[in-house]
Amino acid sequence: MANPRAAMLVIGDEILSGRTRDSNLHYLAKELTRCGIDLVEARLVPDDHAAIVAAVRALSAGHDHLFTSGGIGPTHDDITADAVAEAMGAKIGHRADAMALLQAHYDRQGTEFNEARQRMARIPDGAVLIDNPISVAPGFTLGNVHVMAGVPTIFEAMLASVLPGLTGGAPLLSQSLRVMRGEGEIAAEFGALAQAFPDLSMGSYPFSQNGVYGTNLVIRGSDPARLDAAMQRLMALFG
Amino acid sequence: MANPRAAMLVIGDEILSGRTRDSNLHYLAKELTRCGIDLVEARLVPDDHAAIVAAVRALSAGHDHLFTSGGIGPTHDDITADAVAEAMGAKIGHRADAMALLQAHYDRQGTEFNEARQRMARIPDGAVLIDNPISVAPGFTLGNVHVMAGVPTIFEAMLASVLPGLTGGAPLLSQSLRVMRGEGEIAAEFGALAQAFPDLSMGSYPFSQNGVYGTNLVIRGSDPARLDAAMQRLMALFG
Repeated sequence: MANPRAAMLVIGDEILSGRTRDSNLHYLAKELTRCGIDLVEARLVPDDHAAIVAAVRALSAGHDHLFTSGGIGPTHDDITADAVAEAMGAKIGHRADAMALLQAHYDRQGTEFNEARQRMARIPDGAVLIDNPISVAPGFTLGNVHVMAGVPTIFEAMLASVLPGLTGGAPLLSQSLRVMRGEGEIAAEFGALAQAFPDLSMGSYPFSQNGVYGTNLVIRGSDPARLDAAMQRLMALFG
Repeated sequence: MANPRAAMLVIGDEILSGRTRDSNLHYLAKELTRCGIDLVEARLVPDDHAAIVAAVRALSAGHDHLFTSGGIGPTHDDITADAVAEAMGAKIGHRADAMALLQAHYDRQGTEFNEARQRMARIPDGAVLIDNPISVAPGFTLGNVHVMAGVPTIFEAMLASVLPGLTGGAPLLSQSLRVMRGEGEIAAEFGALAQAFPDLSMGSYPFSQNGVYGTNLVIRGSDPARLDAAMQRLMALFG
């Protein structure tokens, strides 16, 4: 049987002006090759509504999957979600599930969930949210289009959530623990835990809040029982 | 006057499989920005005749210039010249000027100018050769399509031959401000500033450093006075 065929759409003025060098395309190419999905075309377009709509239409129609990166943040030039909705003929608004995720996140941080941040809850009707273990604001899958962030660490984390569902494998589950200690302080014990659970994938994502360093520890795997076992050990170490 | 608009087509299985990481796109983007030519779209396609023909047709018709990289060497998968000829409705064969260049080169080296190497003399009728100071085998310009090698050093050398002959607009200038605040916090005011300067392009690029979130705010435009005015407002807001 032939491999599924995929395309990628990289969105952002900063790539085409040469200010930023894209790295998501190369990362996606390697990951898809590893999974037996053929990346057969890629396009780069600026932050331009009509250009994004046209590219999404052409690439989603011509391939089994389309992966996009960029343009889903809180600023005025983040227009990907609306453009994808239009291209796919879906309605879009501030969706309750995404609003709840973000509200809870900013409440935990003691940060205002202002209008700009609410922009990141604009999700098309019928889309499935893509987990963002790093900064919460979700991506989404609408039809065969997988919409992900442009920041490489977040793109890579989102892709890790999406890929297992495409290749017929068991869906990848994740659990996370927020620890108010710096990465360097917990790295040795966290690394030992990762070695004790070679069937799971463990990642750490540093942040700082009000001048205090913290780390989000994320565990991914397809077996819920193993995930629970690892989380219990994690809680015992740092909970 | 608006800047000329350009597109790029990156050709090669090795990029889409993740085996090789393209660097020519980023290099071209920076060079065009410096010259006042706007790179407004890029595509990557595999070594597939029909895919190259279709992309060359679409991109050369829709832009002032199209730059291609890859697929002009001596092996069976080097099919760019023939595909570009077909896309542009030109005949192609072993052209005498290119044959003479290569014959002299291999004579100097004492190397056989065999059939495979002669493939690199396939140049469309009516095309202008692009100098290759590194390994002699030329690129070519046919209509508004500039066909160059995929090897980065050769691509860069060929581009240096091509760019001075193209008419650029005013060079795009940029100024940026690094702010140690998250995107969501500054989005509203930054968006309002962008609306106040519709002739400039403003983008925000989040980063995290040692666990601290920050944002690079970038303003681009071709009028230095307008750029200075916008930067003053930006500094007053976030400086």
